[in-house]
Amino acid sequence: MKKIRKVGILTGGGDCPGLNAVIRAVVHTACRDYGLVVCGIIDGYAGLIHKNVRKLELADVSGILPRGGTILGTSNRDNPFNYTEEGAGKAKEHRDVSAQALKTIEYNEIDVLIAVGGDGTQHIANQFYERHGLPVVGVPKTIDNDLNGTDVTFGFDTALNIATTAIDKLHSTAEAHHRVMVIEVMGRYAGWIALEAGLAGGGDVILVPEFPYHIQAVCDKIRRRADGGKRFSLVVVAEGAKPEGGQLVVARQVNDASDPIRLGGIAAQVANQVEDMTGIESRYTILGHVQRGGSPTPYDRILASRFGYHAVEAAVNRKFGHMVGLRGNEIKTTPIKEAIAVPRRVRADDDIVRTARAVGTCFGA
Amino acid sequence: MKKIRKVGILTGGGDCPGLNAVIRAVVHTACRDYGLVVCGIIDGYAGLIHKNVRKLELADVSGILPRGGTILGTSNRDNPFNYTEEGAGKAKEHRDVSAQALKTIEYNEIDVLIAVGGDGTQHIANQFYERHGLPVVGVPKTIDNDLNGTDVTFGFDTALNIATTAIDKLHSTAEAHHRVMVIEVMGRYAGWIALEAGLAGGGDVILVPEFPYHIQAVCDKIRRRADGGKRFSLVVVAEGAKPEGGQLVVARQVNDASDPIRLGGIAAQVANQVEDMTGIESRYTILGHVQRGGSPTPYDRILASRFGYHAVEAAVNRKFGHMVGLRGNEIKTTPIKEAIAVPRRVRADDDIVRTARAVGTCFGA
Amino acid sequence: MKKIRKVGILTGGGDCPGLNAVIRAVVHTACRDYGLVVCGIIDGYAGLIHKNVRKLELADVSGILPRGGTILGTSNRDNPFNYTEEGAGKAKEHRDVSAQALKTIEYNEIDVLIAVGGDGTQHIANQFYERHGLPVVGVPKTIDNDLNGTDVTFGFDTALNIATTAIDKLHSTAEAHHRVMVIEVMGRYAGWIALEAGLAGGGDVILVPEFPYHIQAVCDKIRRRADGGKRFSLVVVAEGAKPEGGQLVVARQVNDASDPIRLGGIAAQVANQVEDMTGIESRYTILGHVQRGGSPTPYDRILASRFGYHAVEAAVNRKFGHMVGLRGNEIKTTPIKEAIAVPRRVRADDDIVRTARAVGTCFGA
Amino acid sequence: MKKIRKVGILTGGGDCPGLNAVIRAVVHTACRDYGLVVCGIIDGYAGLIHKNVRKLELADVSGILPRGGTILGTSNRDNPFNYTEEGAGKAKEHRDVSAQALKTIEYNEIDVLIAVGGDGTQHIANQFYERHGLPVVGVPKTIDNDLNGTDVTFGFDTALNIATTAIDKLHSTAEAHHRVMVIEVMGRYAGWIALEAGLAGGGDVILVPEFPYHIQAVCDKIRRRADGGKRFSLVVVAEGAKPEGGQLVVARQVNDASDPIRLGGIAAQVANQVEDMTGIESRYTILGHVQRGGSPTPYDRILASRFGYHAVEAAVNRKFGHMVGLRGNEIKTTPIKEAIAVPRRVRADDDIVRTARAVGTCFGA
Repeated sequence: MKKIRKVGILTGGGDCPGLNAVIRAVVHTACRDYGLVVCGIIDGYAGLIHKNVRKLELADVSGILPRGGTILGTSNRDNPFNYTEEGAGKAKEHRDVSAQALKTIEYNEIDVLIAVGGDGTQHIANQFYERHGLPVVGVPKTIDNDLNGTDVTFGFDTALNIATTAIDKLHSTAEAHHRVMVIEVMGRYAGWIALEAGLAGGGDVILVPEFPYHIQAVCDKIRRRADGGKRFSLVVVAEGAKPEGGQLVVARQVNDASDPIRLGGIAAQVANQVEDMTGIESRYTILGHVQRGGSPTPYDRILASRFGYHAVEAAVNRKFGHMVGLRGNEIKTTPIKEAIAVPRRVRADDDIVRTARAVGTCFGA
Repeated sequence: MKKIRKVGILTGGGDCPGLNAVIRAVVHTACRDYGLVVCGIIDGYAGLIHKNVRKLELADVSGILPRGGTILGTSNRDNPFNYTEEGAGKAKEHRDVSAQALKTIEYNEIDVLIAVGGDGTQHIANQFYERHGLPVVGVPKTIDNDLNGTDVTFGFDTALNIATTAIDKLHSTAEAHHRVMVIEVMGRYAGWIALEAGLAGGGDVILVPEFPYHIQAVCDKIRRRADGGKRFSLVVVAEGAKPEGGQLVVARQVNDASDPIRLGGIAAQVANQVEDMTGIESRYTILGHVQRGGSPTPYDRILASRFGYHAVEAAVNRKFGHMVGLRGNEIKTTPIKEAIAVPRRVRADDDIVRTARAVGTCFGA
Repeated sequence: MKKIRKVGILTGGGDCPGLNAVIRAVVHTACRDYGLVVCGIIDGYAGLIHKNVRKLELADVSGILPRGGTILGTSNRDNPFNYTEEGAGKAKEHRDVSAQALKTIEYNEIDVLIAVGGDGTQHIANQFYERHGLPVVGVPKTIDNDLNGTDVTFGFDTALNIATTAIDKLHSTAEAHHRVMVIEVMGRYAGWIALEAGLAGGGDVILVPEFPYHIQAVCDKIRRRADGGKRFSLVVVAEGAKPEGGQLVVARQVNDASDPIRLGGIAAQVANQVEDMTGIESRYTILGHVQRGGSPTPYDRILASRFGYHAVEAAVNRKFGHMVGLRGNEIKTTPIKEAIAVPRRVRADDDIVRTARAVGTCFGA
Repeated sequence: MKKIRKVGILTGGGDCPGLNAVIRAVVHTACRDYGLVVCGIIDGYAGLIHKNVRKLELADVSGILPRGGTILGTSNRDNPFNYTEEGAGKAKEHRDVSAQALKTIEYNEIDVLIAVGGDGTQHIANQFYERHGLPVVGVPKTIDNDLNGTDVTFGFDTALNIATTAIDKLHSTAEAHHRVMVIEVMGRYAGWIALEAGLAGGGDVILVPEFPYHIQAVCDKIRRRADGGKRFSLVVVAEGAKPEGGQLVVARQVNDASDPIRLGGIAAQVANQVEDMTGIESRYTILGHVQRGGSPTPYDRILASRFGYHAVEAAVNRKFGHMVGLRGNEIKTTPIKEAIAVPRRVRADDDIVRTARAVGTCFGA
């Protein structure tokens, strides 16, 4: 059994506050506690494909703890098992370049790869592990908080803070103006940000992808409030929310080959419908990537640091093919395979949903 | 000459952080220093039309200093000189109901009216003053900072802070992801928020209504950065920015009878064009009314308090038809008529524009 | 068995962000879901002693969710079982006025009392329950996070954010100036705030009440950093930290009859010793009650809302003498007696302590 | 007349948010607009004494705009005209090492020196200019805002925001607890931070160095509020505030050779006296260097950028011995000598003082 001497680390997928805290904790733990060497792989799996790897020492991670982004860069396009050559004019080809990626690992003498990322990143890591026997350890990361294998992921609390702060600001102005304010937050398939920011911000209506909504129910709620003297309302809508049975065709936010149905504009649609149906002026805000940016909250920095520390522990203890995760107050590991089998989505009997209903929130149904 | 015994105050037009600070300072100064009675008029000029007036005492303004919004409510539709009856189904009529408004003032024995608001509110105040001899004192308020008669208006610094904070957050995520981030901020006719938040946030491109832009110039700037190794860029765009000679037809943000051409979606348009022309992934954020909300900054609280104090001083000293304003470090008064004659707009030789150019910002031209 | 018709609620002990969110959730759940009447008891147990009770309706809790403080007021002096008469000049007497408190409950026909508070408040609630059979339900609240029966209490995350934000600011200025910055945070008996804010803020040294420190070890750490080129260091110290074996007598922060040994000034002492022993300029900050103030974080608002919702559920389900608490992702109840038996304190084998050590933090030992 | 080819820049004195924005603007303007070379001098004048100079290029200032601190480091001890040798055990000697500093300038072929700093830094710059004919341009910097020659200095708005945010937080907790909260902010000789943060935060009492206070007047104000039902009060005290005629000897904050009378602990003294005299529980907070840290506000970033841009303009236009400054909305230059002749201090007839009095603030007199 080969001794672990060198650890590789990459950050893949969408940006998420706390990535630098993970990297810092990995470098400290590996270098100080175990005398290992750490290699940073640049721009996620792209760095393996393009041989873009650099050594990380303590000095490299000095001062990065409170910073958003990732010093390693990230990419959510470069899947070594299904790589799309970029290039203007020519037809896109999908190729398996995983052998090339493995060569980079071999060349750099990386004994174990710590893959920090969401569903997509973990899936690729698991393929390397299962198909090629590559020692990998996963660290979960998803702003949407929709991964299993952990109670919560870092980045979510930061996004929640940003979204709630925005809702708080809309609240005062909605009240002064007697308006309906619609705010679109992240969450294409899982509505955790909308749900929790909506509860925290006192949203009157929360629309999540998991519960298709009836615009009529939304307008009824808003009218009932107006009848009771509250001529303003706040609607928090996840970007992936959709009307029951209805169609949703709006300006797309992006061209993304890997995800052609990514939609934008649900906020505009809801605001326009509400204004037309209730006669109350409605405005919308689309927060977008602001939610992924900036300095992580203390909660996320601590969680990310613990994940980084335990990822090295897991690597040294040869828990390959596993992902670290928070369970209650403890960090535990789960097989990556299990963690990514099904996404964590909002359910009607979730305690937070029940609490939101108890304080009067309408979910559009 | 009638002695001043009672002061009326209304807040009109769009919401703006600092309104409560003005109201508080007016009530304190009037009640404590001059033993006057203060009447709050509810929902701007609508309160005069609909006889919605209430006495304001020290206890009513306790604790409101740090709060966004306005305890008096506001309205930007109810012009007594050109009043639009609301009502489903019937044709809209425009009527002059200023006599009704004056009756409310008379009935409540209001000796002088302090009108806190922007261009529209001041214009109406001035009409009351010029046509009907109503003693009025203006307090300037516009989040867009486009009023003359004052170096700066309260609310602007708060909006600037919110916009800059959002840009800061986009910065870290843009850098990690190698993306172009487009952020749309307020400013339909004047680009001060975009200009100053763009400079403060290190925006690479700033697009304002005053300087029609060439999308080609925007893309050139972004490409030059990419060639120099910076594969991300930040574009700050005022909602009223428009391409040189070009047409801009995008999803409207609102139905607003008083302003049918209010546009939204410039951010989406710019992001899509940039992505198509440069091949770099682009995302957008529309901040919307978040910029008008929340607790005012200390700068705005202080300025608003000074305005409120001096508005009462001006009322007592019978500077009717005048508006208070900041000049250097002093508060001075200007005839409302002069202040609203032309808007304050961004000019190419403005020192802030020159500073922005000096640090490398592109204005799309 | 008497049917529950009326719920009383009080907030006792130190202030804590999230109290208003609990009150709001209790009122909504009780009124909407169960048709109960809610009575607010003013200023904690003092309201029971002095017959200061008022009805709480939905309108009373409108808009309070994001606000710090408590609309009910609080008091940490008025223990009905050991009441101290205030009054200048006369000797303090301690009396049992619990019968008086019970009369207020009877007079107001309160069927169950929800007591929101920390150790002291829960202890009194439990005395009412055990000695007098009063139906009580506890809601844990302690900024120090030192209560058992729950993984975490609301208010802690807010305090952690405030402390970490302050540390972040000190960081940049410490680095520019090559100084040692000592920051004193709350935590007289439990060092959770210092520990977690220290980890989140990248503190080089963390001193908590649980681990007596050696100033020599602190200075060694600071000197090692200076030798390695880092001429600045951050020391995070809990107000209750104390040197090993040594004596700590410094300027008292307060006169508090119930707690005569409350100390302040540990920050000053550490800063002065460090400066004397290392020759590096040292400065200190004492955050004080800033940590208890302001708007609660989303995390705390959500937790507090869930506690409020479940407190009513527990009341209706007659789980008297129990306290609600968070366990993993679920809200569960525990007998108050168990929850307050021993405080939750920092232990050397705590995972957060181990993570902090892994990233290089010194605990002064 | 020698052509300007190389610009040197140093940052001296206390840390101040916005320093990096000045450096960035200087480098951009000098390199882009004028093709100059920029040299950064490390740790203020110490860098000239110890030959610690490095070239600054565009890449060096990338990303520093929003960061607190200064990438050049600073020092407030190393005066080349009166240099104190450090070294344990030996008596301190004061020597004139200005010739050594000039040699460093000559060796590095620096044609003009931009000195960013407060009173002390400008004084030294002016000595180099007057005694040795060194071409210097000053950029004012003082968190206390006590420099003449400019309406305001960068850093002040950031400090004001931090102090006001802290006061806001104390407000909610003071109200819930019925306590007096005393907060000590920076300002040894000038009370601008206390004055403006006190006005912005709704402080009931503001104590500044310029107006010696009577503790009796402070307590009277607090008692009057309590009599009127407001059982809490907020006292904002500048670190340099002192009682009328009285003596103030409290725990010193620091050992600072250059300033042996720097005092700390005024907050503790006021809190203890208030508690003793009014019987209302009182607590204190000492913000300390938190006020100098963190990311500058947009206002400060813009002002600092403008100063940097104009400092290069002034250098190129040979306005030596001058300091840039804000006058109204414009940047102008003033002879350094004039700017530092007398400090800008709070006066009783200042409009902000009058506004604060109008809203009911007590200045302890």
